[in-house]
Amino acid sequence: MENKFTYQQLMAFTKEIFIKMGCNETDAEMATTNLLSADLRGVDSHGVARLSGYVRLWDANRVNVKPNINIIHETPSTGVVDGDSGLGLVVAPISMNLAIKKAKEVGTGWVSVQNSNHFGIAGQYSMMALSHDMIGIAMTNASAIVAPTFSKEKMLGTNPISVAIPAGAEFPFVADFATTTAANGKLEILQRKNEPVPDGWIQDKEGKPSNDAFELKKGGALLPLGSDREHSSHKGYMMGSIVDIFSGVLSGANFGPWVPPFPAYIPMPENQPGKGIGHFFGAMRIDAFGSADDFKKNMDQWIHRFRNAESTNINQKVIIPGDPEREFESERKINGIELLQDVVYDLKTLGDRFSVTL
Amino acid sequence: MENKFTYQQLMAFTKEIFIKMGCNETDAEMATTNLLSADLRGVDSHGVARLSGYVRLWDANRVNVKPNINIIHETPSTGVVDGDSGLGLVVAPISMNLAIKKAKEVGTGWVSVQNSNHFGIAGQYSMMALSHDMIGIAMTNASAIVAPTFSKEKMLGTNPISVAIPAGAEFPFVADFATTTAANGKLEILQRKNEPVPDGWIQDKEGKPSNDAFELKKGGALLPLGSDREHSSHKGYMMGSIVDIFSGVLSGANFGPWVPPFPAYIPMPENQPGKGIGHFFGAMRIDAFGSADDFKKNMDQWIHRFRNAESTNINQKVIIPGDPEREFESERKINGIELLQDVVYDLKTLGDRFSVTL
Repeated sequence: MENKFTYQQLMAFTKEIFIKMGCNETDAEMATTNLLSADLRGVDSHGVARLSGYVRLWDANRVNVKPNINIIHETPSTGVVDGDSGLGLVVAPISMNLAIKKAKEVGTGWVSVQNSNHFGIAGQYSMMALSHDMIGIAMTNASAIVAPTFSKEKMLGTNPISVAIPAGAEFPFVADFATTTAANGKLEILQRKNEPVPDGWIQDKEGKPSNDAFELKKGGALLPLGSDREHSSHKGYMMGSIVDIFSGVLSGANFGPWVPPFPAYIPMPENQPGKGIGHFFGAMRIDAFGSADDFKKNMDQWIHRFRNAESTNINQKVIIPGDPEREFESERKINGIELLQDVVYDLKTLGDRFSVTL
Repeated sequence: MENKFTYQQLMAFTKEIFIKMGCNETDAEMATTNLLSADLRGVDSHGVARLSGYVRLWDANRVNVKPNINIIHETPSTGVVDGDSGLGLVVAPISMNLAIKKAKEVGTGWVSVQNSNHFGIAGQYSMMALSHDMIGIAMTNASAIVAPTFSKEKMLGTNPISVAIPAGAEFPFVADFATTTAANGKLEILQRKNEPVPDGWIQDKEGKPSNDAFELKKGGALLPLGSDREHSSHKGYMMGSIVDIFSGVLSGANFGPWVPPFPAYIPMPENQPGKGIGHFFGAMRIDAFGSADDFKKNMDQWIHRFRNAESTNINQKVIIPGDPEREFESERKINGIELLQDVVYDLKTLGDRFSVTL
């Protein structure tokens, strides 16, 4: 079986699946753009590999493919969006556009979102601000698989933060990271190889350190960025908490252990305090803080200086956030996207069900 | 020598020193409030222990005790403040008040600050928002003592972030943390005891791991939160970078390795691209995102649930950010503040110089 596909092939296939699910053309296009952006940028865990997961959520009646997405509260610089149980992949870009619109009007825009679903990669939304000469911010809460410092219980999601910052001649600065020690992608690689995980990534269900890549399925938890108290895991816990509160509490979505799980087979938490999953978006016009040209010139200097800092290893320069993903993107646009055998099988099964050819 | 003082004793002494330096009554009061707040809240490294450091900066003509603090750019939701080389302890609360004023008008306020000096603890400014039913955010860059992932060179300061979030019946959520693995205070304790530091806190001047608590004086560097690449130190590096860019690049202050050092004996970096040190402040009205009462009720539920998560250790509950500092504050307000012998000696020397009795 051929496992390598062009961007266009995967784009056409994925969009058609969303349309067959009942999405309109525009929504299907938005959702597909985000998923494929993850595949292009090397975040394979968040790309078309998740398409069947979204379909299962729809099968479980947890995704509304014809949502009535509404602004339910606003001020000149803020808004709250009700995603009406829509795909996060659709609710998120609409909400980010609202933040951008408000930034045009009063300098910055901040939008908290309730009643949404998983939105894919955060970086896709923060980067929407760049072409407007704005700094973009995107974050989301997610179902609880992370244990706070001193907790046995899983209380937070991987709760990623993305910040995209325009530059001048240099490529933009694009940070996009989960507030955990372990990257999901790396954990999955070790699972497939059946290899142990490094110290400091995971704890077992008693809260003891573990090196078992499958520990999460046995009641264990991911650890916050910092790994343990001696290495300041309370800071990762605080960051994850801030993302949870901005995304969930501010919007009226669920928060902490009540956030709906992505896998459709996991039952919904009981006594949920809010609606769906929450996101938080921000946009800041760089010329709301002075000359945009000066800002870009200084960002170029920042990037140039950091990239050329003396490195610890002659073969490894200091990385500017966004560099690795951009390199993946350039390469995969030309050479195509290689999918895992399991993912191809999943997509073909979906294709058979919806009569769409991959 | 008696090393324990009441809050009022230290307050009166410190304020008088600032007045003798030339600060007006209001500025001296603001500056003293911040320093003493650090001592009360258990952040001893940032309290009156630093008073002589501020005096040395003034001796070196790097602090303007009669600053003309100006708004040099603004939009309805943003502002840039020129601190005119004033004490950060004075420039910061004025700038945070501007963010709060803008939040009252348009929902949120965001203020970037140039031409300032070290501002003490970030938590003091984020907490200013709480009484206005706002979320407060404060961050600052600082002179470079942190090496990014793969860098031998020190490029970033400890660049702290503080976020204060109001609750209802519960105490507010107050996060305040440096974006490094090692807390400065803990490092200082190990230096005084002449004990080694744990793995993952520090690297030597070649970028190799070190356990020497004095490594920074030998050309070494602190490590970003995460410690090493395998434990996602690039995420700590990204957070520190975002603080640097929001505080330094957005405002027109210095950034990266060009940020002025706190110790007055260290020469200023050459070819500085901006003015002084930079800060960034934010204020978001909680009722700009819906009912303030609902928000507080949900924050109470968040706090209650996290505090009562099943813990890994029967003697150690899960901590809500702000709890430990509040406990220090309650205790020290009643029982007084115990200072280290060196700090008392420093203060007495200052007292002799300025004819102020401790």
